[in-house]
Amino acid sequence: MTGAQPVPFLKGHGTENDFVILPDPDGLLELTAETVARLCDRRAGIGGDGLLRVVRSASHPEAREMAADAEWFMDYRNSDGSVAEMCGNGVRVFVRCLERAGLVKAGEVAVATRAGVKRTHLAEDGSGVTVAMGPAVLPEGAVNVRVGARSWDAVHVNMGNPHAVAFVGELADAGSLLEAPAVEPAAAYPTGTNVEFVVDRGHRHVAMRVHERGSGETRSCGTGACAVMVAAARRDGLDPVADGEDATYTVDVPGGTLVITERADGEIEMTGPAVIVAEGTVEAEWLRA
Amino acid sequence: MTGAQPVPFLKGHGTENDFVILPDPDGLLELTAETVARLCDRRAGIGGDGLLRVVRSASHPEAREMAADAEWFMDYRNSDGSVAEMCGNGVRVFVRCLERAGLVKAGEVAVATRAGVKRTHLAEDGSGVTVAMGPAVLPEGAVNVRVGARSWDAVHVNMGNPHAVAFVGELADAGSLLEAPAVEPAAAYPTGTNVEFVVDRGHRHVAMRVHERGSGETRSCGTGACAVMVAAARRDGLDPVADGEDATYTVDVPGGTLVITERADGEIEMTGPAVIVAEGTVEAEWLRA
Repeated sequence: MTGAQPVPFLKGHGTENDFVILPDPDGLLELTAETVARLCDRRAGIGGDGLLRVVRSASHPEAREMAADAEWFMDYRNSDGSVAEMCGNGVRVFVRCLERAGLVKAGEVAVATRAGVKRTHLAEDGSGVTVAMGPAVLPEGAVNVRVGARSWDAVHVNMGNPHAVAFVGELADAGSLLEAPAVEPAAAYPTGTNVEFVVDRGHRHVAMRVHERGSGETRSCGTGACAVMVAAARRDGLDPVADGEDATYTVDVPGGTLVITERADGEIEMTGPAVIVAEGTVEAEWLRA
Repeated sequence: MTGAQPVPFLKGHGTENDFVILPDPDGLLELTAETVARLCDRRAGIGGDGLLRVVRSASHPEAREMAADAEWFMDYRNSDGSVAEMCGNGVRVFVRCLERAGLVKAGEVAVATRAGVKRTHLAEDGSGVTVAMGPAVLPEGAVNVRVGARSWDAVHVNMGNPHAVAFVGELADAGSLLEAPAVEPAAAYPTGTNVEFVVDRGHRHVAMRVHERGSGETRSCGTGACAVMVAAARRDGLDPVADGEDATYTVDVPGGTLVITERADGEIEMTGPAVIVAEGTVEAEWLRA
């Protein structure tokens, strides 16, 4: 990865979706999949759901064309070391890191990602970061979610990735979620799907659990919270694009609270916390081992 | 915990039993159970199986009487914040931290713990740390371990804490270990027990999985590895105290390899790796939140 120099890192989370963050403005780190996996290992390494490398867009071949619109590139990796396009909770933490390092100020911050330039807004009071997540698509056709002997009608929502949103009586009805819920018809989700279980908590306020495709149950899923908001709005007779009026829901996830707004232009904005827990250096000897 | 100062920490592991380490030589940190639990939280905090506070024995009321024999006190806490007496993997990491800070040199190092002064040996070549774990006791009476429809005769070994050691055909025979194995007779273990599943790997070389009482399956258990070594030695017709000759076994755990020696005087010595992965500071604002 580097020579004998210790490598600076931070650790942070957004609604308990947590990340190892590597500041690397000039793109000098050679970050193999193996190194990422070692850093994200929760017992043998530092530990995280993923890794965010902070690189100047102009210094990264995948981001150079975005450099005019977004100075910083979020090089996001999954915990197994594979490259990923975008992470809604991750981009909030990314922006918090930039703020903390004095590289951006409160207000509008554009971030280059493998899914294009993402618009974000950093609150002046430090309360949260808002990310434009794109519009939702609701494919036609009924879908159904089943856990053990129980099953529920669900709403098919696509946020760039697929979701099946089921309104349930209690979050505990979904059971242990140690296995992926069965979703039908299989043809609706040719590459599998994330599944959300939702209950009402109050006026435009819901709570959810999520089973992420390939990860199991997690503490938070940004696109899942957006899908849940859209499904709840439609159920409540709200369609911001048709109505010409924004709609906002509070969505409790196991790791915290997100506020989701579907705007009259169809854009979905997610606002949530972004917390830096610690910073330091990774031992050079450990990295080389 | 403290005022606005960031708090120094390290993260390290011994055979993937991992720890947040807080250097606090003068015992100034007010470390509540809640703070420990927050630091050990793997997503919202730094993450660890436990926390090791490094305090000068003379500066800690629980260790003052040991100060003449052991300069440093390992204030060990479980990840839920509760106080614990001793941890065999933890004490290796503790000694590595002392070495790294220049506070001890290779050779014999005594460590004060809530279970008394522990003798350790720090290898000159940095390879590992040896800890004297005390003698094993083998209570009489047959015990049996059951997982689902399979059951095995087991060996009852007490290393200060209870163990049931079962020799199995393959480590996979124990299944997912998502639930505690059933152990009988219940009267043999009035406070529950740790359960080890063991296979042979070669001459005086075994591999094990462990289900820890209260924690589930873990990557490593120091006392469990010692119990396994003793059970294997007796099975192989070796009894160092009776034979007047030390016996040494290599014990593979999921998180690495330990070498266990039962000496002719009954003392059991465990040697294994101790790795510091990273160091840094915890955000003062996060700690106060």
